[in-house]
Amino acid sequence: MEQFSNGDIFAGEVIGTAILILFGAGVCAAVTLRHSKAKDSGWIVIAFGWGFGVLAGAYTAAPLSGGHLNPAVTLGIAMDGGGWGKVPVYVAGQLVGAFLGAVLTWVVYFAQFAANSDTKHAQPTLGIFSTIPEIRNPVANLLTEVVATVALVLPLLAFGLTKGLGESGTAVLMVAFVVVGIGLSLGGPTGYAINPARDLGPRLAHAVLPIPHKGTSDWGYAWVPVAGPLIGAALAAGIFRLAF
Amino acid sequence: MEQFSNGDIFAGEVIGTAILILFGAGVCAAVTLRHSKAKDSGWIVIAFGWGFGVLAGAYTAAPLSGGHLNPAVTLGIAMDGGGWGKVPVYVAGQLVGAFLGAVLTWVVYFAQFAANSDTKHAQPTLGIFSTIPEIRNPVANLLTEVVATVALVLPLLAFGLTKGLGESGTAVLMVAFVVVGIGLSLGGPTGYAINPARDLGPRLAHAVLPIPHKGTSDWGYAWVPVAGPLIGAALAAGIFRLAF
Amino acid sequence: MEQFSNGDIFAGEVIGTAILILFGAGVCAAVTLRHSKAKDSGWIVIAFGWGFGVLAGAYTAAPLSGGHLNPAVTLGIAMDGGGWGKVPVYVAGQLVGAFLGAVLTWVVYFAQFAANSDTKHAQPTLGIFSTIPEIRNPVANLLTEVVATVALVLPLLAFGLTKGLGESGTAVLMVAFVVVGIGLSLGGPTGYAINPARDLGPRLAHAVLPIPHKGTSDWGYAWVPVAGPLIGAALAAGIFRLAF
Amino acid sequence: MEQFSNGDIFAGEVIGTAILILFGAGVCAAVTLRHSKAKDSGWIVIAFGWGFGVLAGAYTAAPLSGGHLNPAVTLGIAMDGGGWGKVPVYVAGQLVGAFLGAVLTWVVYFAQFAANSDTKHAQPTLGIFSTIPEIRNPVANLLTEVVATVALVLPLLAFGLTKGLGESGTAVLMVAFVVVGIGLSLGGPTGYAINPARDLGPRLAHAVLPIPHKGTSDWGYAWVPVAGPLIGAALAAGIFRLAF
Repeated sequence: MEQFSNGDIFAGEVIGTAILILFGAGVCAAVTLRHSKAKDSGWIVIAFGWGFGVLAGAYTAAPLSGGHLNPAVTLGIAMDGGGWGKVPVYVAGQLVGAFLGAVLTWVVYFAQFAANSDTKHAQPTLGIFSTIPEIRNPVANLLTEVVATVALVLPLLAFGLTKGLGESGTAVLMVAFVVVGIGLSLGGPTGYAINPARDLGPRLAHAVLPIPHKGTSDWGYAWVPVAGPLIGAALAAGIFRLAF
Repeated sequence: MEQFSNGDIFAGEVIGTAILILFGAGVCAAVTLRHSKAKDSGWIVIAFGWGFGVLAGAYTAAPLSGGHLNPAVTLGIAMDGGGWGKVPVYVAGQLVGAFLGAVLTWVVYFAQFAANSDTKHAQPTLGIFSTIPEIRNPVANLLTEVVATVALVLPLLAFGLTKGLGESGTAVLMVAFVVVGIGLSLGGPTGYAINPARDLGPRLAHAVLPIPHKGTSDWGYAWVPVAGPLIGAALAAGIFRLAF
Repeated sequence: MEQFSNGDIFAGEVIGTAILILFGAGVCAAVTLRHSKAKDSGWIVIAFGWGFGVLAGAYTAAPLSGGHLNPAVTLGIAMDGGGWGKVPVYVAGQLVGAFLGAVLTWVVYFAQFAANSDTKHAQPTLGIFSTIPEIRNPVANLLTEVVATVALVLPLLAFGLTKGLGESGTAVLMVAFVVVGIGLSLGGPTGYAINPARDLGPRLAHAVLPIPHKGTSDWGYAWVPVAGPLIGAALAAGIFRLAF
Repeated sequence: MEQFSNGDIFAGEVIGTAILILFGAGVCAAVTLRHSKAKDSGWIVIAFGWGFGVLAGAYTAAPLSGGHLNPAVTLGIAMDGGGWGKVPVYVAGQLVGAFLGAVLTWVVYFAQFAANSDTKHAQPTLGIFSTIPEIRNPVANLLTEVVATVALVLPLLAFGLTKGLGESGTAVLMVAFVVVGIGLSLGGPTGYAINPARDLGPRLAHAVLPIPHKGTSDWGYAWVPVAGPLIGAALAAGIFRLAF
């Protein structure tokens, strides 16, 4: 992380995380909202939408900041010898970018959100922005996020060791497909935050955006998708140090 | 763009854009038309069909013109220092190719379109060729196309900076997956033109082709999927110049 | 093609085409047959099943024969200066391999095919092995296969010109995704043979295999998925010579 | 295999196989369990979930052990001249990892499994952990697993010969897509074990984990997904030696 300037890191993480959330919250809007062509198109659409958001965002940010887009990834890399000095700039950029991406999603689906003023067909909207557990059980939900984040950060650290991935520029593609896989496989219980900024930034946007009948922003749950991914990243960095 | 001859650029963009639209309009026909094996197979099919159309078209055109296939992409590259002299040849090729691709789609689905003469089961056909907003709101629809095109052109410009992507020939694959992602995530409100030629060429083909019960070609909306992508591309090029 | 020995070509094309058809006929069996876990899982499954069959088969055959697996591909490469001397060996291997792949599919789904003896729930089975047009119209069906095969062979020839694709071994992946795209977009009317061996070999297998209540092998249609792809490949090679 | 130390092999195979099963059993839980966001999302989700599990697990294990994650793969490589001395360490790591991955899946879906105590809506759970044939016919089931494993191991051995795949680090991606294809195409009859550890480890976990109303662990079938893949791998290695 040390090779990038503070300005570049901030710009890269803002832009990259905004793209990630634009795709991610966007696909949740696409599948959820009435008057969307992708209404009810299923879990495969959700998982690939988020994964290709990682692809688009991380490649875009790569020349500026390396493209972390996720405080859990930044934590894992810092613990793996990446250094701690730049961590606050990374996380600040990620939170601002995630908030911005959520606002952009609202812009893209403006007419659809506006149509939510139809009281009779109003839908809850938090699930477009942030994660909601299917069964509310803080310990179980936390464990889900911990394990799912290990499944993100451990492969990501190991990718750096694989000859050819870096040189051919395809490492980000691999991470994107792993994120698709985490969504398909481990997203069932909590909707897979695996990224504190991904959940916190859009939750804040949900709280402040003037969406009709938007429902609660559910701040009581907000600590789980922050704590779980951070614990998971630390665990992954520990396993990596021990085993590799 | 300067390294290609005018003749090669025109040929490359005609062929590449024709392939793009053949796949793209083709997948819309596949999912929409009665008597198609892919009838009602859903949004995931639409998004991957368009994305792999980008893959096939852009790789085919790459040796001749670099494979833009989209006036918004050409605009973004021109603004990023690619030069303006060749822009008219690019755009001309893209429009001719998009028209040609729509005609080829009509050829592929000839029997299905002919079956639309069955008055009782006749279907509107414009949605196979051009985009139709789910909620008609010109300002909101324009904003959707602007943001979605930024999400295409900004990563595309940044891909040029990623070490290895160009050398391994996989940059087009990344763009194709980003297009799949845009479809999945941002296509819900307007059907994601993100390309003026993609909408205008097939709309013209729809207007002139002898399809029974084809319905309106909806020229009143035609300016949105032209203006939106051009504004988005200019915006993306501006962000790129500022941040990178 | 001249760099491979006749024995290697034959072995490579038999093995590679058998794998292609095993995946392709296999996915049609998976989606069609009662008592299959993938019953009714849709067109996206069909298209990716065939595409990854191309991936598996072509990479396996690549070191022995270059992995054509398709007389239309062999014709296109021969016309593009690949030479004519080896064409009969390629085509012979492809036909034998396609027949063998269909027999292997029958082995994999043996219990499912055997269950078709239940007269009350017997299903027609030809669609698992060979293509059947949705609307029977020989001229339109032929045109569909011609255009869809141009969309396969023209990109394939152009891939050879893209720097990096060959060296990094990812050209086959691109072809596989193009085949997925052709399935998604152009498969609606005829089920996309785009390969004479893919249709003829399994049709022969269908005719001879002892499948209960298997129904007609529909030889009256068999010329269309042979002639269409060959015309399409010749057309693609002509366009390639003219434009590139 | 000889270039890796015993400790690294064991650690790599434990970690890699645990990740594979976490994704694989995870996606089966996601699609099966009530109170999962991915409930009933279909076969495409299952096949991509397993495939991206191979991607994540094999890249993670690659620097330590080469990333086999499957006794059938280890057998095929050993027979292809990879040597026999390390085989027991590989297989031990794979079995331990598969068991561990199943336990982690149970952790991720803890609340969902706990909800199975609701007698009225209790679901059988073995299908989340291990394979169950759609039609119980040991000979046919064995043949299915044999052929499906040939379709895995033969391409995998051939990939080693393809110029560029190794250098660009994309060989694992190809194997992952082949596994997606095997799932889509050949998974219909038995649920495609194609890996003795993938079936045996999670079956043991199912037998010992305290899951309410978990149902039988069906040990009578357990030999088929062990024997079938081993026979298939030996067959593939034999074909490879003969033909390549």
